[in-house]
Amino acid sequence: MDKVRVIEIKKSVFAQNELDADSLRRELKERGVYLLNLMSAPGSGKTTTLIKTINLLKDKLRIAVMEADIDSDVDAVKIKEATGIQSIQLHTGGMCHLDAEMTRQGLDGLDLKDVDLVILENVGNLVCPAEFDTGAARNAMILSVPEGHDKPLKYPLMFTVCDVVVINKMDVAPYFDFDLDKCKEYIKMRNPGAEVIPICAKTGEGVEAFAQWILTQINNWKN
Amino acid sequence: MDKVRVIEIKKSVFAQNELDADSLRRELKERGVYLLNLMSAPGSGKTTTLIKTINLLKDKLRIAVMEADIDSDVDAVKIKEATGIQSIQLHTGGMCHLDAEMTRQGLDGLDLKDVDLVILENVGNLVCPAEFDTGAARNAMILSVPEGHDKPLKYPLMFTVCDVVVINKMDVAPYFDFDLDKCKEYIKMRNPGAEVIPICAKTGEGVEAFAQWILTQINNWKN
Repeated sequence: MDKVRVIEIKKSVFAQNELDADSLRRELKERGVYLLNLMSAPGSGKTTTLIKTINLLKDKLRIAVMEADIDSDVDAVKIKEATGIQSIQLHTGGMCHLDAEMTRQGLDGLDLKDVDLVILENVGNLVCPAEFDTGAARNAMILSVPEGHDKPLKYPLMFTVCDVVVINKMDVAPYFDFDLDKCKEYIKMRNPGAEVIPICAKTGEGVEAFAQWILTQINNWKN
Repeated sequence: MDKVRVIEIKKSVFAQNELDADSLRRELKERGVYLLNLMSAPGSGKTTTLIKTINLLKDKLRIAVMEADIDSDVDAVKIKEATGIQSIQLHTGGMCHLDAEMTRQGLDGLDLKDVDLVILENVGNLVCPAEFDTGAARNAMILSVPEGHDKPLKYPLMFTVCDVVVINKMDVAPYFDFDLDKCKEYIKMRNPGAEVIPICAKTGEGVEAFAQWILTQINNWKN
């Protein structure tokens, strides 16, 4: 009895969120602001990857970043110091994901007048963020080598909703039983169209390919 | 308006769950079954740690395992093959956590007649599982070195509700900027009483300390 009630509530929350997300996506399109939603498990290297990517792109695009975190503000500070771009921290107050309404609140905190690209660093979580459309034009995710190549089997929805999977920490692959070919095969099972980009954010290796993927997405979206 | 409605619903779900969890905990105490809830981020090595721990304990305790996963059943199969103990897989159907009612459904699927210890391997997620009391006597968690020593700052509730933090993958510490002392300091900020046990599940190093911690907890609980 209780369980059924909870499920109904979840459904209505999802339906409302999808409407909110669609209308936010339309508004952003009209304003010419491309929103990219970046997701991953905790500790997969989202912030380091962002810093390297932004430094490759900031001469070509005007970029802002929203860092979602339950509590701390270390990531927004790090991004600002390392890239000099506009960066804000969104405190979710314990929430495990961002929905479209929370994303809109974050965007309201940014000066979007001269911004081409906003990157949203979602809460570190492979489950819930995948369920909530933020209104982003595209979803991207990072999987890091130490997490294992079997993650697309265990967290199917996340891999289904992402258009690109960046595989980070390739430099430590020799110390882990990580099979990149198997990982690619499992990702294709979830999402045949997903692009897979192996990188090492620490050294910057491979990050140009992710930066190029972003540029291509924005060009396609504009035309 | 919508947001307030969601928060109220969440509160009532939590309140009901706490009642369910307390009554499950009482029942398990009466039956002499100790339930340990093991949580972590995806890919931190829960299953490997469990296998090593169970092999150290299975001559002293009769153990069963419940493996929660969104979709696959690889973990339950692995545990059964590697330890020979009773093991079942709980499919959460997309849910990001287990609550007390779902835990009860799992326990109903086990033969508990001759069982002293049930270990619940929760969904890989540092956020939501921390919010739902499963009815377990104790919560344990694993943090792995590649995730970084700052995780207690970013996922405060998880570190607050766990009585022991097992730090796994210590063998790869030389390849990561992981500061064990800082990590211990951050854990103490969240939970001054938490025990911290560094291990390497792959080689088995340090796992005896975690096995001993479990034995001590069960002895205290019995007396």
